[in-house]
Amino acid sequence: MPQLGLLPRRACAALLSQLLRPPCAYSPGVVHCHSQVAEAVLTSQLKPHQEKTNFIIKTPKGTRDLSPQQMVVREKVLDLVVSCFKRHGAKGLDTPAFELKELLTEKYGEDSGLIYDLKDQGGELLSLRYDLTVPFARYLAMNKVKKMKRYHVGKVWRRESPTMVQGRYREFCQCDFDIAGQFDSMIPDAECLKIMCEILSGLQLGDFLIKVNDRRIVDGMFAVCGVPESKFRAIGSSIDKLDKMSWKDVRHEMVAKKGLAPEVADQIGDYVQCHGGVTLVEQMFQDPRLSQNKRALEGLEDLKLLFEYLTLFGISEKISFDLSLVRGLDYYTGVIYEAILLQTPAQAGEEPLSVGSVAAGGRYDGLVGMFDPKGHNVPCVGLSIGVERIFSIVEQRMKTSGEKVRTTETQVFVATPQNNFLQERLKLIAELWDAGIKAEMLYKNNPKLLTQLHYCENMGIPLVVIIGEQELKEGVIKLRSVASREEVAIKHENLVAEIRKRLSES
Amino acid sequence: MPQLGLLPRRACAALLSQLLRPPCAYSPGVVHCHSQVAEAVLTSQLKPHQEKTNFIIKTPKGTRDLSPQQMVVREKVLDLVVSCFKRHGAKGLDTPAFELKELLTEKYGEDSGLIYDLKDQGGELLSLRYDLTVPFARYLAMNKVKKMKRYHVGKVWRRESPTMVQGRYREFCQCDFDIAGQFDSMIPDAECLKIMCEILSGLQLGDFLIKVNDRRIVDGMFAVCGVPESKFRAIGSSIDKLDKMSWKDVRHEMVAKKGLAPEVADQIGDYVQCHGGVTLVEQMFQDPRLSQNKRALEGLEDLKLLFEYLTLFGISEKISFDLSLVRGLDYYTGVIYEAILLQTPAQAGEEPLSVGSVAAGGRYDGLVGMFDPKGHNVPCVGLSIGVERIFSIVEQRMKTSGEKVRTTETQVFVATPQNNFLQERLKLIAELWDAGIKAEMLYKNNPKLLTQLHYCENMGIPLVVIIGEQELKEGVIKLRSVASREEVAIKHENLVAEIRKRLSES
Repeated sequence: MPQLGLLPRRACAALLSQLLRPPCAYSPGVVHCHSQVAEAVLTSQLKPHQEKTNFIIKTPKGTRDLSPQQMVVREKVLDLVVSCFKRHGAKGLDTPAFELKELLTEKYGEDSGLIYDLKDQGGELLSLRYDLTVPFARYLAMNKVKKMKRYHVGKVWRRESPTMVQGRYREFCQCDFDIAGQFDSMIPDAECLKIMCEILSGLQLGDFLIKVNDRRIVDGMFAVCGVPESKFRAIGSSIDKLDKMSWKDVRHEMVAKKGLAPEVADQIGDYVQCHGGVTLVEQMFQDPRLSQNKRALEGLEDLKLLFEYLTLFGISEKISFDLSLVRGLDYYTGVIYEAILLQTPAQAGEEPLSVGSVAAGGRYDGLVGMFDPKGHNVPCVGLSIGVERIFSIVEQRMKTSGEKVRTTETQVFVATPQNNFLQERLKLIAELWDAGIKAEMLYKNNPKLLTQLHYCENMGIPLVVIIGEQELKEGVIKLRSVASREEVAIKHENLVAEIRKRLSES
Repeated sequence: MPQLGLLPRRACAALLSQLLRPPCAYSPGVVHCHSQVAEAVLTSQLKPHQEKTNFIIKTPKGTRDLSPQQMVVREKVLDLVVSCFKRHGAKGLDTPAFELKELLTEKYGEDSGLIYDLKDQGGELLSLRYDLTVPFARYLAMNKVKKMKRYHVGKVWRRESPTMVQGRYREFCQCDFDIAGQFDSMIPDAECLKIMCEILSGLQLGDFLIKVNDRRIVDGMFAVCGVPESKFRAIGSSIDKLDKMSWKDVRHEMVAKKGLAPEVADQIGDYVQCHGGVTLVEQMFQDPRLSQNKRALEGLEDLKLLFEYLTLFGISEKISFDLSLVRGLDYYTGVIYEAILLQTPAQAGEEPLSVGSVAAGGRYDGLVGMFDPKGHNVPCVGLSIGVERIFSIVEQRMKTSGEKVRTTETQVFVATPQNNFLQERLKLIAELWDAGIKAEMLYKNNPKLLTQLHYCENMGIPLVVIIGEQELKEGVIKLRSVASREEVAIKHENLVAEIRKRLSES
């Protein structure tokens, strides 16, 4: 594997260049210190009487806390996603948040600069994981696993300029499903697309479309248009921006910044506006130039088979063969796909408007081999659900609907109308907890009854048990429905059974 | 708050000292580069014909992947823990994996050196979170939240010398439950202990004991024994090692390394061997020296009340007032506790043997104030479940029992005895998936029936649906029970209903 062979040489070159840098190369750091010190001194001189200087309490740039409201949405979405992964027979897997730095090198193309490195505090050089795919490939190679269907839900980190709109952060959650192993063509690939459809339908996010293409078709297209092979990835990453930028701007980037001949760019332009169903695949087989390219033909053969399977799965109408789909990451080798949500059903004659990618993936048959000492490959295909964007959409929808979201699951509140009943309340609530009932009480010796009932209404707790002197004497507990305000006295020994009955009915 | 006022001054001093360091201070780094380069060059010279140099594929030191088997254990344990937290009315919360470095400074006493810093890649200085408590306090202060009951399950990172025994890692999962707010004394504290009991009982880890003490009693004890106040935390962290080291070794550390007078150490020695129930609390009220210390008396008063509540909760026999319990972290201010598992029921007359701490926590009334610009405090009490150790114990127990753990949840396998039946299988499996049934098939065009049935037996899949020419003709599907090997023909339109019936019965 030439990729791996390059690693030590590059590392060596980097070290040498560091070594040969004159001492003054360190000075920017020193200057930086200077200005920081100056600022600190200045601040403390300017505010001599203030006890505290400006100490900003915040989360790091591009990150955020998830509030209980957000956690409820997250739990709901992740439950649906994970249960779909399990429905398709996937096993769970987890990997560390950081990897050896060198393991992440040269896997992400132009995006490598976005990797978070850990400080060298002695020992190994480490980086935070950038996705869940490379760690999965590392796991397969390290454990010599030749076949595995796994899912992984976890955070990844990327030092992007944080545009906080539409759920883009520097820390975000990924939900990945991948199938590793040598199998008959396109069967696992079709299952990945089926999974994307099941999840997007299940989440009821509205209409969606999955664009598919194949890296071999992309490369073939570049080759027949006359893009030099050394520019394939760079031009690909320009094309990849077509969902955010106009063709004019993309063309400009390719020609002015990446040195592509204008006529080559125009030829690409003709291809990348093509999208359609299986008939477009047939059409491309007839394309006089593309059909001359061996790799493109392989890709087209696979897409044809894929569409056949997608029809059997009943999802072919959700899939669009789209020649503008490239996918930025270096490691894809075959089929690639990306799901987008379509805003509100399109008016007659109008193109449906895209609101951005919510799931994506593809085939990466060479990645495991980059980690294997002997270069042994394990073909893989997988997908990643863009849950952060989905969280934002669901949160937004909840806000708009004005629906009140419960952030706790408490079923019963333990109340008293009287003073000096803490002991009885503590005994009673322990009884409920021990019976598996979700219960709360106020942490006060003598709370007012109204305060207690208000708490239940605010928190959406459906039942209240009330204990007072009268009840204690009679061996009963009052059970109150918060919604109807009805109260009944229940024999203490029957209380748990009655609560369970009420909860199972509601 | 003096703690916070110190921060900028310290940061300033650190910057100044960096500034004043001579340029040669950078040379160790350069030397380091030198030797790395030398090594790289050497390696490539020595092995001129080998395509790849020694590129080690591993997880970072002190970290590990979690296999599907381990993930099953993890999911089971976490489900139980989280459902207990929810039973007690907690809301979910999540915080970023890293925080501003300065926010973590001076919160962890002697352990601060174990914090992972991120590399300065421009922008803010960041560190990986060390626990979930400080981020929670930061969240409360930042959002001016005065009252909150929350749980948080997440990874934390500590640069400890990794002793891989007993589930100690550099990356590990924590499960925290905390109650923030000004409440009547000891009610939330007692609930924390109740939660620890419920979780440890629920996990069926065998007998356990929860040691409790109070930081004010610890400080009072140190004061009356004659420990200088400046040495309270250092001596405390020595005492904290009593569960791993003998008194003799701890005494040596205090005297020889931390400069404590031997007679002072011996007086501490008398106290720290005391442990018992509420009677020991009563006894300490009578202690001629401890009863002279105001803070110790406050602590004793609270412990007395705590024991009263624990009795009402029915758990007081699980709790031991233990004067040797100190807890290392700086931020505790009141009640502290730590749960240990006791190995096998003790023989008559023998002390039960401890196998280490599995849960711990305490009261920290000053931490939120350290983050609040005006120093406003929010009293907090909480607990952390040592789930990593619990995972190890459960995994070990499963291994010993030889019990086979399923790593997938697949309910139905789609098989065929015939060639050229891929299309029918794909249609059938999509039908099952769409009905919410967990189903798998082999990704082969023409698999052998025996291979398919073996797969089901290996993976513990209970049902197989079989489709062949005969079935297709008759409009039926064969449904086979893997355990009994019985097969029945079911009308295709009744298949999903029959599968659901079978699954609900098993």
